Amino acid sequence: MPSQYVSPTVDVPALATLLDGRYAEVRQLVRKNLAQHGDILRDAEEMSRADFRQRVLDVVVMMARTGQTGMGFPEEYGGGGDIGASIAAFETLAYGDLSVLVKVGVQFGLFGGAILQLGTKPHHDAYLADLVSGKLLGCFAMTETGHGSNVQALGTTAVYDAATAEFVISTPDDLARKDYIGNAAMHASTAVVFAQLVVNGQSQGVHAFVVPIRDETGEPVPGVRIEDCGQKIGLNGVDNGRLWFDGVRVPREALLNRYAEVTADGAYTSEIENPDRRFFTMLGTLVQGRVCVGGAAINASKVALAVAVKYGLRRRQFGTPGSGDEELLLDYGMHRRRLFPLLARTYALHFAQERLAADLHEVFSHEDASERDRRALESRAAGTKALGTWHASRTIQECREACGGAGYLSVNRFDALRADTDVFTTFEGDNTILLQLVAKGLLTDYRDAFGDLDQFGMVRFVASVAVETVMERTSVHKILDRLRDVVPANDPDTDPDAGLLDTSAHLNLLRWREEHMLAGVARRLKKGMDAGGDPAAVFSACQDHVIGAAHAHVERLVLEAFVDKVGAMETGPNREAMHLLCDLYALSAIERDRAWFMEHGRLSNAKSKAVTAMVNELCRRVRPICGDLVDAFDVPPEMLRAEIIH
Amino acid sequence: MPSQYVSPTVDVPALATLLDGRYAEVRQLVRKNLAQHGDILRDAEEMSRADFRQRVLDVVVMMARTGQTGMGFPEEYGGGGDIGASIAAFETLAYGDLSVLVKVGVQFGLFGGAILQLGTKPHHDAYLADLVSGKLLGCFAMTETGHGSNVQALGTTAVYDAATAEFVISTPDDLARKDYIGNAAMHASTAVVFAQLVVNGQSQGVHAFVVPIRDETGEPVPGVRIEDCGQKIGLNGVDNGRLWFDGVRVPREALLNRYAEVTADGAYTSEIENPDRRFFTMLGTLVQGRVCVGGAAINASKVALAVAVKYGLRRRQFGTPGSGDEELLLDYGMHRRRLFPLLARTYALHFAQERLAADLHEVFSHEDASERDRRALESRAAGTKALGTWHASRTIQECREACGGAGYLSVNRFDALRADTDVFTTFEGDNTILLQLVAKGLLTDYRDAFGDLDQFGMVRFVASVAVETVMERTSVHKILDRLRDVVPANDPDTDPDAGLLDTSAHLNLLRWREEHMLAGVARRLKKGMDAGGDPAAVFSACQDHVIGAAHAHVERLVLEAFVDKVGAMETGPNREAMHLLCDLYALSAIERDRAWFMEHGRLSNAKSKAVTAMVNELCRRVRPICGDLVDAFDVPPEMLRAEIIH
Repeated sequence: MPSQYVSPTVDVPALATLLDGRYAEVRQLVRKNLAQHGDILRDAEEMSRADFRQRVLDVVVMMARTGQTGMGFPEEYGGGGDIGASIAAFETLAYGDLSVLVKVGVQFGLFGGAILQLGTKPHHDAYLADLVSGKLLGCFAMTETGHGSNVQALGTTAVYDAATAEFVISTPDDLARKDYIGNAAMHASTAVVFAQLVVNGQSQGVHAFVVPIRDETGEPVPGVRIEDCGQKIGLNGVDNGRLWFDGVRVPREALLNRYAEVTADGAYTSEIENPDRRFFTMLGTLVQGRVCVGGAAINASKVALAVAVKYGLRRRQFGTPGSGDEELLLDYGMHRRRLFPLLARTYALHFAQERLAADLHEVFSHEDASERDRRALESRAAGTKALGTWHASRTIQECREACGGAGYLSVNRFDALRADTDVFTTFEGDNTILLQLVAKGLLTDYRDAFGDLDQFGMVRFVASVAVETVMERTSVHKILDRLRDVVPANDPDTDPDAGLLDTSAHLNLLRWREEHMLAGVARRLKKGMDAGGDPAAVFSACQDHVIGAAHAHVERLVLEAFVDKVGAMETGPNREAMHLLCDLYALSAIERDRAWFMEHGRLSNAKSKAVTAMVNELCRRVRPICGDLVDAFDVPPEMLRAEIIH
Repeated sequence: MPSQYVSPTVDVPALATLLDGRYAEVRQLVRKNLAQHGDILRDAEEMSRADFRQRVLDVVVMMARTGQTGMGFPEEYGGGGDIGASIAAFETLAYGDLSVLVKVGVQFGLFGGAILQLGTKPHHDAYLADLVSGKLLGCFAMTETGHGSNVQALGTTAVYDAATAEFVISTPDDLARKDYIGNAAMHASTAVVFAQLVVNGQSQGVHAFVVPIRDETGEPVPGVRIEDCGQKIGLNGVDNGRLWFDGVRVPREALLNRYAEVTADGAYTSEIENPDRRFFTMLGTLVQGRVCVGGAAINASKVALAVAVKYGLRRRQFGTPGSGDEELLLDYGMHRRRLFPLLARTYALHFAQERLAADLHEVFSHEDASERDRRALESRAAGTKALGTWHASRTIQECREACGGAGYLSVNRFDALRADTDVFTTFEGDNTILLQLVAKGLLTDYRDAFGDLDQFGMVRFVASVAVETVMERTSVHKILDRLRDVVPANDPDTDPDAGLLDTSAHLNLLRWREEHMLAGVARRLKKGMDAGGDPAAVFSACQDHVIGAAHAHVERLVLEAFVDKVGAMETGPNREAMHLLCDLYALSAIERDRAWFMEHGRLSNAKSKAVTAMVNELCRRVRPICGDLVDAFDVPPEMLRAEIIH
């Protein structure tokens, strides 16, 4: 192991520019806006819930006036006409108070996005200009108490009454009440309500409707009952509420009719015949929300790391007796171990997210994007959101503990960060369910069947036809041969350090794992069904395997994005620094799953130990540049707040 | 793998009685007290910080009147004279609001404990009766901004002035201000202050002094400055504060003089000559705090598991298409995987904690307990606290996510649980530091040298003499031979399922890991020093190994406690249920570290996979009894609160 390694001298401004990427200007605008409302972090701590909700609303409306929140909407309605810019703006908001971020997400992403994506010109004309300016406040009423992840089974109904050309919206029971709806408890005057459409007694599946819920005085309109969800773990600047509809009538035009229409005389029409496919197409248009949440989580991790790394570079503890000096926290091997693999993973996820946002921009800027591209985008969005949000929870918690008692004081930032981001792992799609979605796409190879299958349908499908496709695609034996040279198995004569810092070996390991796991899942599902199993039982028995395969897939995508980014950089110290982090990300991912690699003969026992030793060595190499690496995140000082680092 | 397994029918009341153990009556009293103040959980959410602090104080004083909080004090001062009972009472308090728990801990455990353990009869006579009744409120001023873990390097000074027979207490700089001190911001009138004692210009190390900090009107006394630490992640019913002392004079009798005395004319005397040893002896008397925090963390985990398991038995999601039914969350393999290993580990830790509390009771109830027993107790306390509090953080977070959006609402209990317990991992000893303490004890084999060594001293010591002792004690080769029959290594002909549910094989694996890691650490430290390394660098390079060895030691202790408990039970379904959980604890611990076992040839690749499959199978077996297993915790319904399970 080379101990002569000299860490590169990082050019921080250049690295910050690299991270900001294509939308540097947008990100700077948001940083400026955040700094201007810097006192909101203290307000979050000191104000009553009611006052803080109002404060957050005020900031959101003020930000809307700067154009920051409307970048994804068409220019004719006051928007910026640039989806990529809107993602960049949203992500950067995560450096600040996250109630503001989520309120922006609810108003412009979910409510606005539904009107834009599911509605047609009359809806756009009626609502977009006002909602972009923050004059019309709305909410996105999808989740119900009884149905969060399984949206297709929502209980709310919208029955078409041809006599009056109206839909009648009803909540059949308390399990069907809309729940956890952001903006609903106080501020929204209008809701996009997802309900089972019934025309002529026939159910046509879930559709979205624009439903007024409050009058001009702010009182609920007749037939609508609203309840406050009350205190939450975090995000208490967002007013989440519950909604019940008691035969609320809305005109025929309230149906957001991009994908389906009900004629005045009560005929249901849609260009998409298959109802499941129609439902998933509608949902697919809302993918932007997931992309945003993932990006926000990654940026929240940056704030936590900035505080913890800066603290670790100031705070001393214990020391060599007699020397009188105490050691800096980050001179302890364990402290580096706690923080640096997370720092490397944050960079990796940053570049994966950049790639995802670019894909989103492409797909949504072109009407004729292929079905396959859309499905690939949805899968990548689901996976990146899951890994990004879990990463944020883990990183923020580790950073908090790495700051000891000081980390427990709200002023030092971790309180709000961890409380506010905590729900990210379960909202906009529960992470576990999202990884199942990723696995489904992989197993069905983005066939037409995608979208028609729930998880049990997937089991049947895999058991019938998909398994051969998957097996052929992954062609395990060929890969195994290909890898044999690259990754030595249990060979006692091989130098265990050999190839440890070989990027293509890292990629090959992650690819092999993904393909092997996927083929294994396909085989198990097929075997279970062939043996006459009940799909639910077959699925349940290998659910951890399904999710593991999806996880492996996304980790591979993340590594590829990082490797591509480093490859495209000019030679120099910054590229060297990124290469170092990329190795650390790859090796610490491999280390974390080294049991699997050993179980499958891909790592020898000796090599596995060498991986751990090399992760320690890479952490040592990151040590001299760790301050620069967090400075390049360019978190506005007002948003760092933490008195422990000043 | 036997699929015919029929889960035992649990006798819940009998299991609850088993868990309550020797102090069932005390625990029932606390449950009753908690239920009586059940509305405090809502108050925690709704009251302002100032009001809630007062509310918590009121509850603490009311509880003190029931005798619940004073059980560990001598009867002549109004206490219960039973240390074991006081631990049981404290642990059970963790079912309720944790600000109450921590305020009790500060007042009776830390402040009261310091007076009792470090003081002598005059101090007992002067303070104990009033503090037991809650009339005299105090705080424990040890931690400083610059020194939390490294208490020996505190900056506060206490200089003896023989002319007036007084100590002069001073805060030299802001890094030496007392920080995060519970009860200090508002309620404490008196502090036990830890400071460097200086007599005749000579420093005698850290000692404790009783110092009045507020007058009868509640204002700081002259020379004392107090600041409020403000909002924290949780425990906002406890008033943490900062203290500065500007030449505050206290009489000679203010020194808590059980272990050292300053005569009126300024001579320093102590029965313990070695100053390091003296310091660690003083600290050792405060071990009760760690025991209490660990027990509280384990009980907080029970509350979280009770809510999440009950929710998983009610909430349905998705389902076999066409059946119209949705599956219960706990019928999903992944959901069981998330919760049941944590449930098993909670039981395991419960019994390990029971054993620890019994040890504490023994050692502290006998003046003549041996030095070795005291050191063993301290080590066990440190390790159980670290594993118990990390377990609580992980369990509460997993339970929150397993309840999705509902878990995010404060009413459903996880908000307070996770925020309040979060600091448990870093207070009363940072977990990482505590595991180093455990490792130090193991490496130095509880020699007299214990206590004289900081971590770098340990490195030197191990390098000089300890390594042979450790190697001899662990005698790796003998163990290796012994194990060869029990745990088959990479032998393709062996049935990988064989011996998977053999308790002695589990114990042997955990013992082998511990001993092998310990010997490895010893070797590495010695090798590093022999090569002329700087102790700090040598230690830093293998710090993760040191901590890993300690972790392995504690996991083995926990398994032994569980195995012993099961062994002592009468044959029957409850014993069968505990046996099942014990297997699940052992196998999921082995699974989590299976990479290590493979790296060291203790698990074949095939066996490692079989472990994972068996953990899944055990989770299936726990499924029918999981509701009973959380009911046996007997958390008062008022403390479950969670509307999602009603």
